[in-house]
Amino acid sequence: MRLSLAEKKIEVQLVEERYWVGDADFLRRNPAGKVPVLKMGGEIYTESSAICEYLEERFPEPRLLPQDAQARYEVRRLVSWFDDKFHHEVTANLLYERVNRKIHGSGYPVAANVKAGAKAIKFHLDYMNWLLDNRRWLAGDEMSLADFAAAAQLSALDYICDVDWNRSAAVKDWYATMKSRPAFRSILADNVPGFPPPHHYANLDF
Amino acid sequence: MRLSLAEKKIEVQLVEERYWVGDADFLRRNPAGKVPVLKMGGEIYTESSAICEYLEERFPEPRLLPQDAQARYEVRRLVSWFDDKFHHEVTANLLYERVNRKIHGSGYPVAANVKAGAKAIKFHLDYMNWLLDNRRWLAGDEMSLADFAAAAQLSALDYICDVDWNRSAAVKDWYATMKSRPAFRSILADNVPGFPPPHHYANLDF
Repeated sequence: MRLSLAEKKIEVQLVEERYWVGDADFLRRNPAGKVPVLKMGGEIYTESSAICEYLEERFPEPRLLPQDAQARYEVRRLVSWFDDKFHHEVTANLLYERVNRKIHGSGYPVAANVKAGAKAIKFHLDYMNWLLDNRRWLAGDEMSLADFAAAAQLSALDYICDVDWNRSAAVKDWYATMKSRPAFRSILADNVPGFPPPHHYANLDF
Repeated sequence: MRLSLAEKKIEVQLVEERYWVGDADFLRRNPAGKVPVLKMGGEIYTESSAICEYLEERFPEPRLLPQDAQARYEVRRLVSWFDDKFHHEVTANLLYERVNRKIHGSGYPVAANVKAGAKAIKFHLDYMNWLLDNRRWLAGDEMSLADFAAAAQLSALDYICDVDWNRSAAVKDWYATMKSRPAFRSILADNVPGFPPPHHYANLDF
Protein backbone atom coordinates (compact mmCIF):
# COMPACT_ATOMS: atom_id res chain seq x y z
CA MET A 1 0.00 0.00 0.00
CA ARG A 2 2.86 2.41 0.83
CA LEU A 3 4.48 1.53 -2.51
CA SER A 4 1.19 2.07 -4.34
CA LEU A 5 0.73 5.50 -2.71
CA ALA A 6 4.33 6.48 -3.49
CA GLU A 7 4.12 5.31 -7.11
CA LYS A 8 1.03 7.44 -7.57
CA LYS A 9 2.82 10.33 -5.83
CA ILE A 10 0.18 10.63 -3.11
CA GLU A 11 1.96 12.09 -0.09
CA VAL A 12 1.19 10.53 3.24
CA GLN A 13 2.48 10.98 6.73
CA LEU A 14 3.49 7.70 8.35
CA VAL A 15 2.28 7.26 11.92
CA GLU A 16 3.41 4.34 14.03
CA GLU A 17 0.43 2.42 15.40
CA ARG A 18 1.11 0.23 18.42
CA TYR A 19 -1.67 -2.03 17.17
CA TRP A 20 -0.74 -4.94 19.47
CA VAL A 21 -1.66 -2.82 22.52
CA GLY A 22 -5.24 -2.63 21.23
CA ASP A 23 -6.05 0.75 22.76
CA ALA A 24 -9.57 2.13 22.41
CA ASP A 25 -8.52 5.10 20.31
CA PHE A 26 -6.95 2.89 17.65
CA LEU A 27 -9.88 0.45 17.68
CA ARG A 28 -12.24 3.35 17.12
CA ARG A 29 -10.30 4.26 13.97
CA ASN A 30 -10.23 0.64 12.85
CA PRO A 31 -12.53 -1.98 14.40
CA ALA A 32 -10.48 -4.72 12.70
CA GLY A 33 -7.58 -3.76 15.00
CA LYS A 34 -5.10 -4.20 12.17
CA VAL A 35 -2.60 -2.09 10.27
CA PRO A 36 -2.36 -0.46 7.81
CA VAL A 37 -4.92 2.31 8.25
CA LEU A 38 -5.12 5.12 5.67
CA LYS A 39 -6.71 8.45 6.52
CA MET A 40 -7.56 10.51 3.46
CA GLY A 41 -10.01 13.36 2.97
CA GLY A 42 -11.53 12.81 6.42
CA GLU A 43 -12.31 9.15 5.68
CA ILE A 44 -10.58 6.13 7.21
CA TYR A 45 -9.58 3.19 5.05
CA THR A 46 -8.50 -0.27 6.21
CA GLU A 47 -7.66 -3.66 4.63
CA SER A 48 -4.65 -3.38 2.38
CA SER A 49 -6.09 -4.99 -0.77
CA ALA A 50 -9.32 -2.93 -0.61
CA ILE A 51 -7.22 0.23 -0.22
CA CYS A 52 -5.03 -0.63 -3.23
CA GLU A 53 -8.09 -1.23 -5.42
CA TYR A 54 -9.58 2.07 -4.24
CA LEU A 55 -6.38 4.01 -4.97
CA GLU A 56 -6.31 2.40 -8.42
CA GLU A 57 -9.84 3.61 -9.16
CA ARG A 58 -9.44 7.10 -7.70
CA PHE A 59 -5.89 7.74 -8.97
CA PRO A 60 -5.51 5.63 -12.11
CA GLU A 61 -2.08 7.04 -13.13
CA PRO A 62 0.35 5.38 -13.22
CA ARG A 63 -1.70 2.24 -13.79
CA LEU A 64 -0.83 -0.66 -11.46
CA LEU A 65 -3.60 -2.96 -12.73
CA PRO A 66 -3.73 -3.84 -16.45
CA GLN A 67 -6.91 -3.26 -18.46
CA ASP A 68 -7.61 -6.76 -19.76
CA ALA A 69 -9.77 -8.88 -17.41
CA GLN A 70 -7.55 -11.98 -17.68
CA ALA A 71 -4.41 -9.95 -16.94
CA ARG A 72 -6.15 -8.21 -14.01
CA TYR A 73 -7.09 -11.62 -12.63
CA GLU A 74 -3.45 -12.72 -12.75
CA VAL A 75 -2.33 -9.60 -10.85
CA ARG A 76 -4.98 -10.14 -8.17
CA ARG A 77 -4.16 -13.84 -7.88
CA LEU A 78 -0.52 -12.98 -7.19
CA VAL A 79 -1.38 -10.18 -4.78
CA SER A 80 -3.34 -12.77 -2.76
CA TRP A 81 -0.47 -15.21 -3.15
CA PHE A 82 2.03 -12.79 -1.57
CA ASP A 83 -0.31 -11.12 0.93
CA ASP A 84 -1.75 -14.42 2.19
CA LYS A 85 0.29 -17.48 1.29
CA PHE A 86 3.80 -16.00 1.25
CA HIS A 87 3.01 -13.88 4.30
CA HIS A 88 1.61 -16.79 6.26
CA GLU A 89 4.25 -19.36 5.25
CA VAL A 90 7.35 -17.17 5.22
CA THR A 91 7.03 -13.68 6.74
CA ALA A 92 4.99 -14.74 9.78
CA ASN A 93 7.42 -17.58 10.49
CA LEU A 94 10.63 -15.59 10.08
CA LEU A 95 9.97 -11.91 10.74
CA TYR A 96 7.24 -12.28 13.34
CA GLU A 97 9.16 -14.92 15.26
CA ARG A 98 12.47 -13.06 15.22
CA VAL A 99 11.45 -9.41 15.44
CA ASN A 100 7.82 -8.87 16.43
CA ARG A 101 8.07 -11.20 19.42
CA LYS A 102 10.96 -9.16 20.76
CA ILE A 103 9.20 -5.84 20.18
CA HIS A 104 5.94 -7.06 21.74
CA GLY A 105 7.74 -8.88 24.54
CA SER A 106 6.01 -12.18 23.74
CA GLY A 107 8.91 -14.59 24.32
CA TYR A 108 11.57 -16.32 22.27
CA PRO A 109 11.25 -17.39 18.62
CA VAL A 110 9.68 -20.84 18.16
CA ALA A 111 12.43 -22.83 16.39
CA ALA A 112 10.00 -25.02 14.42
CA ASN A 113 8.33 -21.93 12.93
CA VAL A 114 11.64 -20.34 11.93
CA LYS A 115 12.68 -23.63 10.33
CA ALA A 116 9.39 -23.89 8.41
CA GLY A 117 9.79 -20.30 7.20
CA ALA A 118 13.38 -20.89 6.05
CA LYS A 119 12.23 -23.91 4.08
CA ALA A 120 9.18 -22.17 2.57
CA ILE A 121 11.11 -19.13 1.31
CA LYS A 122 13.13 -21.41 -0.99
CA PHE A 123 9.95 -22.73 -2.60
CA HIS A 124 8.62 -19.18 -3.02
CA LEU A 125 11.87 -17.84 -4.53
CA ASP A 126 11.82 -20.75 -6.99
CA TYR A 127 8.20 -19.94 -7.89
CA MET A 128 9.13 -16.30 -8.50
CA ASN A 129 12.10 -17.45 -10.58
CA TRP A 130 9.74 -19.56 -12.70
CA LEU A 131 7.35 -16.63 -13.18
CA LEU A 132 10.19 -14.27 -14.14
CA ASP A 133 11.60 -16.83 -16.57
CA ASN A 134 8.44 -16.38 -18.62
CA ARG A 135 7.55 -12.76 -17.97
CA ARG A 136 9.16 -9.37 -17.60
CA TRP A 137 7.33 -8.65 -14.34
CA LEU A 138 5.72 -11.10 -11.92
CA ALA A 139 2.19 -10.93 -13.33
CA GLY A 140 2.98 -10.19 -16.98
CA ASP A 141 4.67 -7.66 -19.19
CA GLU A 142 3.83 -4.64 -17.07
CA MET A 143 4.75 -3.72 -13.53
CA SER A 144 1.73 -4.13 -11.27
CA LEU A 145 0.40 -4.38 -7.73
CA ALA A 146 1.74 -7.97 -7.74
CA ASP A 147 5.34 -6.72 -7.92
CA PHE A 148 4.68 -4.35 -5.03
CA ALA A 149 3.02 -7.05 -2.93
CA ALA A 150 6.02 -9.35 -3.46
CA ALA A 151 8.62 -6.62 -2.93
CA ALA A 152 6.96 -5.54 0.32
CA GLN A 153 7.32 -9.07 1.76
CA LEU A 154 10.88 -9.50 0.46
CA SER A 155 12.12 -6.12 1.72
CA ALA A 156 10.91 -6.96 5.23
CA LEU A 157 12.78 -10.28 5.09
CA ASP A 158 15.88 -8.69 3.55
CA TYR A 159 15.97 -6.35 6.54
CA ILE A 160 16.73 -9.38 8.72
CA CYS A 161 19.03 -10.99 6.08
CA ASP A 162 16.61 -13.86 5.41
CA VAL A 163 16.69 -13.71 1.61
CA ASP A 164 19.32 -15.74 -0.23
CA TRP A 165 19.84 -13.53 -3.28
CA ASN A 166 22.13 -16.13 -4.84
CA ARG A 167 19.25 -18.54 -5.30
CA SER A 168 17.90 -16.89 -8.46
CA ALA A 169 19.55 -14.31 -10.69
CA ALA A 170 16.14 -13.44 -12.17
CA VAL A 171 14.66 -12.65 -8.76
CA LYS A 172 17.74 -10.64 -7.75
CA ASP A 173 17.58 -8.57 -10.96
CA TRP A 174 13.86 -7.99 -10.49
CA TYR A 175 14.37 -6.86 -6.88
CA ALA A 176 17.24 -4.56 -7.91
CA THR A 177 14.86 -2.88 -10.36
CA MET A 178 12.15 -2.54 -7.71
CA LYS A 179 14.66 -1.09 -5.24
CA SER A 180 15.74 1.59 -7.68
CA ARG A 181 12.22 2.98 -8.07
CA PRO A 182 11.58 6.30 -6.30
CA ALA A 183 8.52 4.68 -4.65
CA PHE A 184 10.86 2.33 -2.79
CA ARG A 185 12.87 5.08 -1.05
CA SER A 186 10.65 5.29 1.99
CA ILE A 187 10.78 1.49 2.47
CA LEU A 188 14.57 1.52 2.25
CA ALA A 189 14.74 4.30 4.85
CA ASP A 190 12.80 2.16 7.38
CA ASN A 191 14.52 1.60 10.67
CA VAL A 192 13.07 -0.63 13.38
CA PRO A 193 14.25 0.59 16.82
CA GLY A 194 16.64 -1.98 18.30
CA PHE A 195 17.11 -3.68 14.92
CA PRO A 196 19.44 -1.64 12.71
CA PRO A 197 19.21 -2.70 9.04
CA PRO A 198 22.17 -4.55 7.52
CA HIS A 199 24.52 -2.60 5.25
CA HIS A 200 23.17 -4.14 2.01
CA TYR A 201 19.49 -3.42 2.85
CA ALA A 202 19.26 0.02 1.26
CA ASN A 203 22.13 -0.56 -1.16
CA LEU A 204 21.01 -0.68 -4.80
CA ASP A 205 24.05 -2.85 -5.61
CA PHE A 206 23.60 -5.78 -3.20
CA MET B 1 -17.47 -17.68 -5.17
CA ARG B 2 -20.17 -20.34 -5.61
CA LEU B 3 -22.79 -17.75 -4.71
CA SER B 4 -21.33 -15.27 -7.16
CA LEU B 5 -21.35 -17.86 -9.95
CA ALA B 6 -24.93 -18.87 -9.13
CA GLU B 7 -26.18 -15.28 -8.94
CA LYS B 8 -24.72 -14.64 -12.39
CA LYS B 9 -26.28 -17.92 -13.59
CA ILE B 10 -22.93 -19.41 -14.63
CA GLU B 11 -23.36 -23.16 -14.40
CA VAL B 12 -20.53 -25.08 -12.82
CA GLN B 13 -19.96 -28.66 -11.88
CA LEU B 14 -18.76 -29.06 -8.30
CA VAL B 15 -15.86 -31.45 -7.85
CA GLU B 16 -14.63 -32.48 -4.42
CA GLU B 17 -10.90 -31.80 -4.03
CA ARG B 18 -9.19 -33.71 -1.26
CA TYR B 19 -6.79 -30.74 -1.00
CA TRP B 20 -5.38 -31.84 2.36
CA VAL B 21 -3.88 -34.94 0.74
CA GLY B 22 -1.74 -32.66 -1.45
CA ASP B 23 -1.51 -35.02 -4.42
CA ALA B 24 0.61 -34.02 -7.41
CA ASP B 25 -2.32 -33.83 -9.80
CA PHE B 26 -4.12 -31.26 -7.67
CA LEU B 27 -0.94 -29.25 -7.05
CA ARG B 28 -0.35 -29.11 -10.79
CA ARG B 29 -3.79 -27.53 -11.21
CA ASN B 30 -3.14 -25.14 -8.34
CA PRO B 31 0.37 -24.58 -6.99
CA ALA B 32 -1.12 -22.77 -3.97
CA GLY B 33 -2.60 -26.12 -2.89
CA LYS B 34 -5.83 -24.44 -1.81
CA VAL B 35 -9.50 -24.57 -2.71
CA PRO B 36 -11.55 -23.23 -4.44
CA VAL B 37 -10.28 -23.84 -7.97
CA LEU B 38 -12.39 -22.73 -10.94
CA LYS B 39 -11.89 -24.21 -14.37
CA MET B 40 -13.49 -22.17 -17.14
CA GLY B 41 -12.82 -22.04 -20.86
CA GLY B 42 -9.69 -24.19 -20.50
CA GLU B 43 -8.16 -21.82 -17.93
CA ILE B 44 -7.67 -22.50 -14.24
CA TYR B 45 -8.51 -19.85 -11.67
CA THR B 46 -7.54 -19.79 -7.99
CA GLU B 47 -7.82 -17.40 -5.02
CA SER B 48 -11.42 -16.68 -4.18
CA SER B 49 -11.29 -12.86 -4.15
CA ALA B 50 -9.39 -12.69 -7.47
CA ILE B 51 -11.98 -15.03 -9.01
CA CYS B 52 -14.92 -12.92 -7.78
CA GLU B 53 -13.37 -9.74 -9.23
CA TYR B 54 -12.78 -11.55 -12.52
CA LEU B 55 -16.36 -12.85 -12.69
CA GLU B 56 -17.59 -9.32 -11.97
CA GLU B 57 -15.59 -7.94 -14.91
CA ARG B 58 -16.40 -10.73 -17.35
CA PHE B 59 -20.08 -11.17 -16.38
CA PRO B 60 -21.20 -7.79 -15.01
CA GLU B 61 -24.90 -8.72 -14.68
CA PRO B 62 -26.29 -8.82 -12.07
CA ARG B 63 -23.85 -6.35 -10.57
CA LEU B 64 -22.35 -7.43 -7.24
CA LEU B 65 -19.98 -4.47 -6.93
CA PRO B 66 -21.43 -0.93 -6.99
CA GLN B 67 -20.11 1.64 -9.45
CA ASP B 68 -19.00 4.41 -7.10
CA ALA B 69 -15.36 4.05 -5.94
CA GLN B 70 -16.15 4.75 -2.27
CA ALA B 71 -18.97 2.18 -2.27
CA ARG B 72 -16.74 -0.36 -4.02
CA TYR B 73 -14.11 0.18 -1.34
CA GLU B 74 -16.65 -0.57 1.38
CA VAL B 75 -17.69 -3.82 -0.34
CA ARG B 76 -14.06 -4.93 -0.69
CA ARG B 77 -13.24 -3.96 2.90
CA LEU B 78 -16.07 -6.18 4.13
CA VAL B 79 -15.18 -9.06 1.80
CA SER B 80 -11.70 -9.01 3.38
CA TRP B 81 -13.29 -8.71 6.81
CA PHE B 82 -15.32 -11.90 6.33
CA ASP B 83 -12.83 -13.87 4.22
CA ASP B 84 -9.89 -13.09 6.52
CA LYS B 85 -10.85 -11.82 9.95
CA PHE B 86 -14.17 -13.61 10.47
CA HIS B 87 -12.79 -16.77 8.86
CA HIS B 88 -9.65 -16.75 10.99
CA GLU B 89 -11.31 -15.80 14.29
CA VAL B 90 -14.55 -17.75 13.99
CA THR B 91 -14.80 -20.33 11.19
CA ALA B 92 -11.27 -21.74 11.63
CA ASN B 93 -11.82 -22.05 15.39
CA LEU B 94 -15.26 -23.65 15.25
CA LEU B 95 -15.73 -25.46 11.93
CA TYR B 96 -12.13 -26.52 11.37
CA GLU B 97 -11.73 -27.77 14.93
CA ARG B 98 -15.03 -29.65 15.01
CA VAL B 99 -15.41 -30.97 11.47
CA ASN B 100 -12.25 -30.71 9.36
CA ARG B 101 -10.08 -32.38 12.03
CA LYS B 102 -12.42 -35.37 12.02
CA ILE B 103 -12.51 -35.59 8.22
CA HIS B 104 -8.71 -35.25 7.91
CA GLY B 105 -8.06 -37.53 10.88
CA SER B 106 -5.95 -34.91 12.65
CA GLY B 107 -7.08 -35.42 16.22
CA TYR B 108 -9.59 -33.96 18.67
CA PRO B 109 -10.78 -30.33 18.71
CA VAL B 110 -8.56 -28.00 20.74
CA ALA B 111 -10.92 -26.67 23.44
CA ALA B 112 -9.20 -23.28 23.69
CA ASN B 113 -9.75 -22.67 19.97
CA VAL B 114 -13.42 -23.65 20.12
CA LYS B 115 -13.88 -21.32 23.09
CA ALA B 116 -12.15 -18.44 21.28
CA GLY B 117 -14.38 -19.02 18.24
CA ALA B 118 -17.56 -19.08 20.32
CA LYS B 119 -16.55 -15.77 21.91
CA ALA B 120 -15.53 -14.15 18.63
CA ILE B 121 -18.76 -14.99 16.78
CA LYS B 122 -20.70 -12.83 19.29
CA PHE B 123 -18.52 -9.82 18.50
CA HIS B 124 -18.96 -10.43 14.76
CA LEU B 125 -22.74 -10.83 14.96
CA ASP B 126 -22.90 -7.56 16.90
CA TYR B 127 -20.80 -5.86 14.24
CA MET B 128 -23.14 -7.16 11.52
CA ASN B 129 -26.11 -5.98 13.59
CA TRP B 130 -24.54 -2.51 13.77
CA LEU B 131 -23.96 -2.44 10.00
CA LEU B 132 -27.51 -3.58 9.26
CA ASP B 133 -28.92 -0.99 11.65
CA ASN B 134 -27.62 1.68 9.29
CA ARG B 135 -27.89 -0.04 5.93
CA ARG B 136 -30.18 -2.28 3.95
CA TRP B 137 -27.37 -4.69 3.06
CA LEU B 138 -24.03 -5.17 4.76
CA ALA B 139 -22.02 -2.80 2.57
CA GLY B 140 -24.72 -0.31 1.63
CA ASP B 141 -28.07 -0.04 -0.07
CA GLU B 142 -27.42 -2.77 -2.63
CA MET B 143 -26.70 -6.45 -2.24
CA SER B 144 -23.04 -7.13 -2.98
CA LEU B 145 -20.13 -9.53 -2.74
CA ALA B 146 -19.91 -8.55 0.94
CA ASP B 147 -23.28 -10.18 1.66
CA PHE B 148 -22.17 -13.34 -0.11
CA ALA B 149 -18.84 -13.42 1.73
CA ALA B 150 -20.65 -13.12 5.06
CA ALA B 151 -23.41 -15.59 4.19
CA ALA B 152 -20.85 -18.18 3.06
CA GLN B 153 -19.17 -18.09 6.49
CA LEU B 154 -22.46 -18.08 8.40
CA SER B 155 -24.01 -20.94 6.42
CA ALA B 156 -20.99 -23.14 7.20
CA LEU B 157 -21.35 -22.34 10.90
CA ASP B 158 -25.12 -22.78 10.81
CA TYR B 159 -24.53 -26.29 9.47
CA ILE B 160 -22.96 -27.16 12.82
CA CYS B 161 -25.50 -25.09 14.80
CA ASP B 162 -22.93 -22.51 15.90
CA VAL B 163 -24.97 -19.41 15.08
CA ASP B 164 -27.21 -17.95 17.76
CA TRP B 165 -29.93 -16.45 15.57
CA ASN B 166 -31.59 -14.88 18.61
CA ARG B 167 -28.69 -12.52 19.12
CA SER B 168 -29.82 -10.05 16.43
CA ALA B 169 -33.16 -9.79 14.65
CA ALA B 170 -31.52 -7.68 11.92
CA VAL B 171 -28.94 -10.36 11.18
CA LYS B 172 -31.57 -13.09 11.21
CA ASP B 173 -33.79 -11.18 8.78
CA TRP B 174 -30.83 -10.49 6.52
CA TYR B 175 -29.83 -14.17 6.52
CA ALA B 176 -33.41 -15.26 5.81
CA THR B 177 -33.37 -13.02 2.72
CA MET B 178 -30.03 -14.44 1.60
CA LYS B 179 -31.27 -18.00 2.11
CA SER B 180 -34.30 -17.41 -0.08
CA ARG B 181 -32.20 -16.39 -3.09
CA PRO B 182 -32.01 -19.00 -5.86
CA ALA B 183 -28.19 -18.66 -5.73
CA PHE B 184 -28.28 -20.10 -2.23
CA ARG B 185 -29.95 -23.38 -3.20
CA SER B 186 -26.74 -25.25 -3.90
CA ILE B 187 -25.26 -24.17 -0.54
CA LEU B 188 -28.38 -25.34 1.30
CA ALA B 189 -28.18 -28.71 -0.46
CA ASP B 190 -24.64 -29.30 0.86
CA ASN B 191 -24.13 -32.46 2.82
CA VAL B 192 -20.85 -33.32 4.51
CA PRO B 193 -20.47 -37.15 4.73
CA GLY B 194 -20.71 -38.19 8.37
CA PHE B 195 -22.16 -34.82 9.42
CA PRO B 196 -25.84 -34.62 8.42
CA PRO B 197 -27.13 -31.02 8.49
CA PRO B 198 -29.58 -30.02 11.25
CA HIS B 199 -33.26 -29.70 10.35
CA HIS B 200 -33.25 -25.89 10.34
CA TYR B 201 -30.19 -25.58 8.05
CA ALA B 202 -32.03 -25.54 4.72
CA ASN B 203 -35.29 -24.28 6.18
CA LEU B 204 -36.21 -20.78 5.02
CA ASP B 205 -38.20 -20.31 8.21
CA PHE B 206 -35.61 -20.99 10.92
